[in-house]
Amino acid sequence: MPVITLDDVRAAAATLDGVANRTPVMTSRTLDERVGARVHLKAESFQRGGAFKFRGAYNKISSLAPDVRARGVIAYSSGNHAQAVAIAARLHGTSATIVMPEDAPRAKVEATLGYGAEIVRYDRFTEKREEIGARLAAERGLELVRPYDDPLVMAGQGTTALELLEEVPDVDVLVVPLGGGGLIAGCATAATALRPGIRIVGVEPDAGDDTARSLAAGERVAIDVPRTIADGLQASEPGELTFEVNRLLVDEVVTVSDEEIIEAMAFLFDRLKLVTEPSGAVGVAALLTGATRPRGTAGVVISGGNVGAARFAELLGRR
Amino acid sequence: MPVITLDDVRAAAATLDGVANRTPVMTSRTLDERVGARVHLKAESFQRGGAFKFRGAYNKISSLAPDVRARGVIAYSSGNHAQAVAIAARLHGTSATIVMPEDAPRAKVEATLGYGAEIVRYDRFTEKREEIGARLAAERGLELVRPYDDPLVMAGQGTTALELLEEVPDVDVLVVPLGGGGLIAGCATAATALRPGIRIVGVEPDAGDDTARSLAAGERVAIDVPRTIADGLQASEPGELTFEVNRLLVDEVVTVSDEEIIEAMAFLFDRLKLVTEPSGAVGVAALLTGATRPRGTAGVVISGGNVGAARFAELLGRR
Repeated sequence: MPVITLDDVRAAAATLDGVANRTPVMTSRTLDERVGARVHLKAESFQRGGAFKFRGAYNKISSLAPDVRARGVIAYSSGNHAQAVAIAARLHGTSATIVMPEDAPRAKVEATLGYGAEIVRYDRFTEKREEIGARLAAERGLELVRPYDDPLVMAGQGTTALELLEEVPDVDVLVVPLGGGGLIAGCATAATALRPGIRIVGVEPDAGDDTARSLAAGERVAIDVPRTIADGLQASEPGELTFEVNRLLVDEVVTVSDEEIIEAMAFLFDRLKLVTEPSGAVGVAALLTGATRPRGTAGVVISGGNVGAARFAELLGRR
Repeated sequence: MPVITLDDVRAAAATLDGVANRTPVMTSRTLDERVGARVHLKAESFQRGGAFKFRGAYNKISSLAPDVRARGVIAYSSGNHAQAVAIAARLHGTSATIVMPEDAPRAKVEATLGYGAEIVRYDRFTEKREEIGARLAAERGLELVRPYDDPLVMAGQGTTALELLEEVPDVDVLVVPLGGGGLIAGCATAATALRPGIRIVGVEPDAGDDTARSLAAGERVAIDVPRTIADGLQASEPGELTFEVNRLLVDEVVTVSDEEIIEAMAFLFDRLKLVTEPSGAVGVAALLTGATRPRGTAGVVISGGNVGAARFAELLGRR
């Protein structure tokens, strides 16, 4: 039995209807010419909280029994999942506690605080967020909202592809950023069910190729915490449930370097006037470098835009 | 008899239907809280060519007799009008010659060349683009597409407000960047006809307050070519026709500094994930500084997003 099905994604879409933003699909003649395909970008930078993460978090919190939900939720996250959980918790009238690394981008920390969450910091290179999250959840009676390894979270993220395929039904290749694997698992579930034969391509940062390695090995492989500017894709091991989905549905995983990500961010800024965080630009980076070469109609998920103007300026200064 | 009427703007909208992008209207809870009004941003950064200018240029070129149009068009512009004329000319299968200052932003020069136009450069501080444009037009038999002082151009720009008011009919205050005055003249014509009593606010850069001075003097006043980062608002004198409209329909003109513009660009990037060029951000700058304090529902035109990632990073570095 599959971990999630198209029906789960459709149920999530019903839950999210009128709450999540139906984000725009953007195109660019210049990009099409560069890539040699018709490219449709699903701009989750315009999602609530600035990234796709709201979809999964809201779907999960909606599913909690009222008395469980009322005690509050907890999450560990490098940022976007944190903001998403904070927003979704507030919409449900409950509290959110966020376990966040000490080196998380300032813009994300401030945004999370701005959404009314309590933040608990930890050292990403010496402590395990899973352990801190589990301990706090037990101590305080909080419900853990996992960033990806939860069927309800995965189904929520899959609504991204559902919307894209409703708007562009003839997508031949779907290119998706790949960190813990929740976004691509949900998207692949929806897309392969709606359009059998569609090709699913995941994109990881060079330093964070845990899923590429895991697929090659046929089992989950752990790597060191990757050092990359793509802070949303720093998973060191695929999720248990996400890998179960992705090893069946993902056709190919390619990687891009930090420099290539910065070039893609600049391209998206200059040509499409899109603000993308490093993790959000990896799909376009993979197209621009030729790491993957789609034919026909390509869909690309721009997963988020939470970069901050100062950080963007700093990253661009590296070119 | 007015220079243009709502019917002219509606006719322009019909001409532009299916050719110009119907740009999105964006909102932000954070912005609303900061300003104390419900703010709706009309994002012309997503217009063809990256700015509202396409509307007027296409409307004008569409109106030319086929034999006139076939000889080619000419325009003088600091950039966005140039790109707009180049795109519109290409769509009509004719050629475009652009007279452009030597210090025009590189991104705009390259984009204009990319759209297939021929560029003639001049020194903005010693030569008059109007004279160069007129001479080339006469020598080569080209039709001049003025950047603002033309009823068909003004009517085209007015479709920006027409679309905004169709989507948000209860706008109480409309805030519009003000350079030569074509955008605000068209928008004010449409908006005051559709919603009598609406307040029209123009925003100029501190250094380029020619219209503010002209309105105070009751006649067109010329100033030195303003030195400001808002390169789209460097008019040194209001247009003859635009001033005739604006002195009747514009309620207030306020100014913002370059520093305030940069703050607004950062705010729009961080909170709305919008890429805006300096000229495009002046409306939001005026709201954030309190230069104008709208009540109720405000509409703000984000006039363009052609800034270039490198230039954006450089401007942000000044903070």
